[in-house]
Amino acid sequence: MTRTPTVIVFDVNETLSDMAPIASRFIDVGAPGHLATTWFAALLRDGFALTAAGSSMPFAEIGDGALRVALAGLPLDRDLDDAVAHVMDGFRTLDVHPDVAEGVRSLRAAGLRLVTLSNGSASIAEDLLSRVGLRQDFERCLSVEDAGLWKPAAGAYRYAAQACGCDVGEMVLVAVHPWDVDGAARAGMGTALVNRSGGPYPAYFTPPQITVARLSDLSRELGV
Amino acid sequence: MTRTPTVIVFDVNETLSDMAPIASRFIDVGAPGHLATTWFAALLRDGFALTAAGSSMPFAEIGDGALRVALAGLPLDRDLDDAVAHVMDGFRTLDVHPDVAEGVRSLRAAGLRLVTLSNGSASIAEDLLSRVGLRQDFERCLSVEDAGLWKPAAGAYRYAAQACGCDVGEMVLVAVHPWDVDGAARAGMGTALVNRSGGPYPAYFTPPQITVARLSDLSRELGV
Repeated sequence: MTRTPTVIVFDVNETLSDMAPIASRFIDVGAPGHLATTWFAALLRDGFALTAAGSSMPFAEIGDGALRVALAGLPLDRDLDDAVAHVMDGFRTLDVHPDVAEGVRSLRAAGLRLVTLSNGSASIAEDLLSRVGLRQDFERCLSVEDAGLWKPAAGAYRYAAQACGCDVGEMVLVAVHPWDVDGAARAGMGTALVNRSGGPYPAYFTPPQITVARLSDLSRELGV
Repeated sequence: MTRTPTVIVFDVNETLSDMAPIASRFIDVGAPGHLATTWFAALLRDGFALTAAGSSMPFAEIGDGALRVALAGLPLDRDLDDAVAHVMDGFRTLDVHPDVAEGVRSLRAAGLRLVTLSNGSASIAEDLLSRVGLRQDFERCLSVEDAGLWKPAAGAYRYAAQACGCDVGEMVLVAVHPWDVDGAARAGMGTALVNRSGGPYPAYFTPPQITVARLSDLSRELGV
């Protein structure tokens, strides 16, 4: 970090929320659990395709449509609309990862402003944080739906800076996704990767300035 | 179609080539075959992320890096570099789908100009078409590597029009990928979807002007 940040910008899906239960919902409806990973990659692929082509659609609509493609032809235990609803409703029941509460509270205790910036809806983030008792630690839950374009387009990060009344250079994006770290870095934000799995970071993306295995290590690494 | 096209622009990976043997290469190295689908979605996701963020990298570099992420932690039967090479080398051995030769020849017989436009390298397309005896039916094999940005960004389709010395409106993109149909349509090209699987088309993408189950049906649908 070239200077101490004033705002920490959290990605939501997978960074704060533990999406593992979504795989169980695939199994519930008669689909293989590993399809959850393929579906989520396809959801982001298609959302980013629209962004690259200069357009944008709500995350939930892309999730729904990509799910119908992923489930096509499988011997489901219920009709397709019910199966899609069962998987999508899973987002409303997720918990945060075990390292999140401590990490969030230590950053707040250091006087940093905390916001979320999701490609999903603000209400999903609001519900998640309220459910786990962390909503009061966050100043705002921002969604790219109000920016008109998804991360990792630079405009999505600039929207967050504008909404917070600060410069992108005063902000640090925290995410588990390399594409998010890369996009934030290109837009001029500081970056921190949470790498819980210890997996490799792709060489084709801008590396993070900070890498932590747990969110609870971030305040120490930031030196705040 | 509002007017008879003069140039047919073929996507390459999965549209012309049958990528099914790539899954066998995952199994060869000790990974589950279904990981091929997840990996290819992640490859495109990351390539499109760079496009959305205003950057670009060669397809083979993204394929290699995304494969290292996909294979991380799996009990492979060889070292990681050899496993990655074995999967990536699979692209050099693919065949075309059974409907391709007849489809290509009927479009050529109608006097249409044929080119390919791939997010992959031109040499992969050149090798594929040479291997199956169809190279002489194509005027050029184009790659987005010469456009500086990937499909589905509008500039990639405009690059193809410029390279062919015609207007995008005189061209029809042929692809199996809804994101490619959507991007071409937004850029002003005609569009034809080859839907061999009969799967659903996502509601969030611009629908194709023409849909065929086999490439060999395309010349009839184009009315040429």
